[in-house]
Amino acid sequence: MDVVDRLREVLPDDVVVTAPDRTEGYRYDRAMFCPAGVPAAVVLPRTTDQVATTLRIASQTGTPVVPQGARSGLSGAANAVDGGLVLGTERMNRVLEIDPANRLVVVQPGIFNADLSRAVAARGLFYPPDPSSWEFCSIGGNLSTNSGGLCCVKYGVTTDYVLGLEVVLASGEVLRTGRRTVKGVAGYDLTKLIVGSEGTLGVITEATLALRPESARPHTVAALFASTAAAAQAVSDVVAAGLVPSLLEIMDAASIVASAAYLHQDLPLDCEAMLLAQSDLGGDAGRAEVARIAALATQAGATDVIEADDPAEGELLMAARRCVLLAFEALGTTMIDDVCVPRSRLAELMDGVAKVARETGLTIGVPGHAGDGNMHPTVVFDAADPEQARRAQWSFDEIMRLGLDLGGTITGEHGVGVLKKEWLAREIGPVSLNLHREVKRAFDPQGILNPGKVF
Amino acid sequence: MDVVDRLREVLPDDVVVTAPDRTEGYRYDRAMFCPAGVPAAVVLPRTTDQVATTLRIASQTGTPVVPQGARSGLSGAANAVDGGLVLGTERMNRVLEIDPANRLVVVQPGIFNADLSRAVAARGLFYPPDPSSWEFCSIGGNLSTNSGGLCCVKYGVTTDYVLGLEVVLASGEVLRTGRRTVKGVAGYDLTKLIVGSEGTLGVITEATLALRPESARPHTVAALFASTAAAAQAVSDVVAAGLVPSLLEIMDAASIVASAAYLHQDLPLDCEAMLLAQSDLGGDAGRAEVARIAALATQAGATDVIEADDPAEGELLMAARRCVLLAFEALGTTMIDDVCVPRSRLAELMDGVAKVARETGLTIGVPGHAGDGNMHPTVVFDAADPEQARRAQWSFDEIMRLGLDLGGTITGEHGVGVLKKEWLAREIGPVSLNLHREVKRAFDPQGILNPGKVF
Repeated sequence: MDVVDRLREVLPDDVVVTAPDRTEGYRYDRAMFCPAGVPAAVVLPRTTDQVATTLRIASQTGTPVVPQGARSGLSGAANAVDGGLVLGTERMNRVLEIDPANRLVVVQPGIFNADLSRAVAARGLFYPPDPSSWEFCSIGGNLSTNSGGLCCVKYGVTTDYVLGLEVVLASGEVLRTGRRTVKGVAGYDLTKLIVGSEGTLGVITEATLALRPESARPHTVAALFASTAAAAQAVSDVVAAGLVPSLLEIMDAASIVASAAYLHQDLPLDCEAMLLAQSDLGGDAGRAEVARIAALATQAGATDVIEADDPAEGELLMAARRCVLLAFEALGTTMIDDVCVPRSRLAELMDGVAKVARETGLTIGVPGHAGDGNMHPTVVFDAADPEQARRAQWSFDEIMRLGLDLGGTITGEHGVGVLKKEWLAREIGPVSLNLHREVKRAFDPQGILNPGKVF
Repeated sequence: MDVVDRLREVLPDDVVVTAPDRTEGYRYDRAMFCPAGVPAAVVLPRTTDQVATTLRIASQTGTPVVPQGARSGLSGAANAVDGGLVLGTERMNRVLEIDPANRLVVVQPGIFNADLSRAVAARGLFYPPDPSSWEFCSIGGNLSTNSGGLCCVKYGVTTDYVLGLEVVLASGEVLRTGRRTVKGVAGYDLTKLIVGSEGTLGVITEATLALRPESARPHTVAALFASTAAAAQAVSDVVAAGLVPSLLEIMDAASIVASAAYLHQDLPLDCEAMLLAQSDLGGDAGRAEVARIAALATQAGATDVIEADDPAEGELLMAARRCVLLAFEALGTTMIDDVCVPRSRLAELMDGVAKVARETGLTIGVPGHAGDGNMHPTVVFDAADPEQARRAQWSFDEIMRLGLDLGGTITGEHGVGVLKKEWLAREIGPVSLNLHREVKRAFDPQGILNPGKVF
């Protein structure tokens, strides 16, 4: 009896999907240039028990299993493998508990980030990690890639908010990690090991997440610069001044041009870079923090600085940043990179990417999280033109090489998946790579979980 | 040739210490009731190379190695084992680099927490983790136990500040984990797996730590209560109000009595609990935050509330909390526990400990980090009296049982070591325990690193 028959024998009919017209949509995440296989079945469980059953049978039959959230990933980590199972968590999407007294929430992995965020906001609480895809990415995917977002410059990334997990291991055993308390050092930190492991160590079926009190209404400032160097200097000055804005984003000239076209706005003159910053200190403190950032931007050579007290006005200033990926997608096929460098190397990264763009003749915009040094160089090209596709891939590699040369990492928040496997080995080196293999073996001796991904 | 001869052959003379009068002092950390062996030698390397050489020889000879910081630990994790090597990092105690632009510091493991904190403070930067032992604990030890402290209620614990590590593995290979950037998701988070692993996975030889900008001068408030329930209610109300004080400590009646005696102060009347809180928002914002905490304390039934604008006055209010362990030590032998419960169960924990104290007839004070739910019940007894020692151990166990029953953990920040090995198994259960063993094997297949500790 093959794996699908065995699954059908013990799981409800609608949990095991094999009709090709339905499984096709589960093959790919949103990464470019990443192959995907044809799965034997897509399994859509409703309970931890059904996940455990699936993994037990997969283990017994040696069948690969690809855990999958909402397929919003950008590295191919959730792509199907030939003859394997896709294990999608979309039906496990409930908030199980909100506990304001202990500032925590317990959720299932399939819930969208935005739905979780709104559910806790209704109780006066705040879940900070806010990837740009928050309206259509799942918390399970956020956990598996250790997602960041715009407010991590002040509040950190997903791993900083994970108190505990329920995880089904390759064997089908159910592991509980962590706890409900804000501190705890009993045993190895398996929680943070599993976060960011891209589905290679287990299937997350429940997460206990720490929350913060809601923030005050943001104050916003936008500053235009005639050079990326001046904008990067302003970022450094903000850091050196000991300020901790709740958002500190940058856009290069190509990003500004694309966004202005998309929004049908006039293009600012002589503008090579734009900084956007927010403070969520609220009231006078928020106004004062934004005013200090504005003053530092002016001092660093900003040609225009606009402050907004009102959150709605602030969102107008943010519009260019919010729409930038859509703006690039309107121009062609896009390939979004995700390198992170020490903050002090920001200008070098942006100038280096501009050089790659000149060399390839392609548009490469560089929006990103300036306060973290985490940039998203976005290559725009015509996928139907093999020569452009080749140059797009070459530029992608050049940008990762540049990131490593500047003391950075090949991925700040999107993950390795299939896309950056070869680059991971270069970044971490042979001792670490070997240890990765041993750790993987400790969790999944048969190697059935998301094979061919990460390393 | 035995292991000591082999070490002497390749390491400088003064690195390998075998004279019993010198090795004796390296056998124990500060835990009670934890056995220690007699080591074959104490190795005190000056470089990563010497650490690697030591581990290579230990690996070849199958010799146990106990990594050791400043022996300030409270769980026996650093205790020597018979015939093994103690590998002490006291000579590797330098600050290698302070990088204000990227808000990070690179240090060797032997540096004391206070020395690191002062070195970065001189550059306007702040390393938050502040265990009470900060003047005599090493950063290597802090990393190995994932230490907390008083300001983690706002700023988190050691693991939240570790960007990257250099670690010598059991084989003698040198592993580099993490990076210098504030974000990064390339590969498994081996950094946070090694943090808190109590020397069982490798020997940390260098750490890259994130810093924050220095905080403003603290505003302080102390509030006295006629019941622990009222004090715990105030803590809950502070959390519910969305406040995030930079310190939120509690002392029970036994702690207040001991401290008052130690400081030769009058005992406040009718006082069963004291809350201490600080704000480091600075200026009007700090004053306002402390005033809100004071108002909530009054509303919860505080019998006396004192606010201090001046940091020196604030330290006077803090004196009772700062001296409480010395105060208990003046009364007898002390055994400090370290349980952490959900904040909402604080009163139940304190009342439960008081019940244990009544049952044993021993003094058990309960000072702790109220804002984290992380309490340090401290048993005072006469170690020369076997019956008292027996009751002290019994009460220790009862307190851990109570912590688990309240949904908490057996250790919030001190670690497992030898002291809580049996309790770890109860807390994490067989699936997790088995996975711990497999992860350990992935790093240290021969089991030479800190054998007999943690699990």
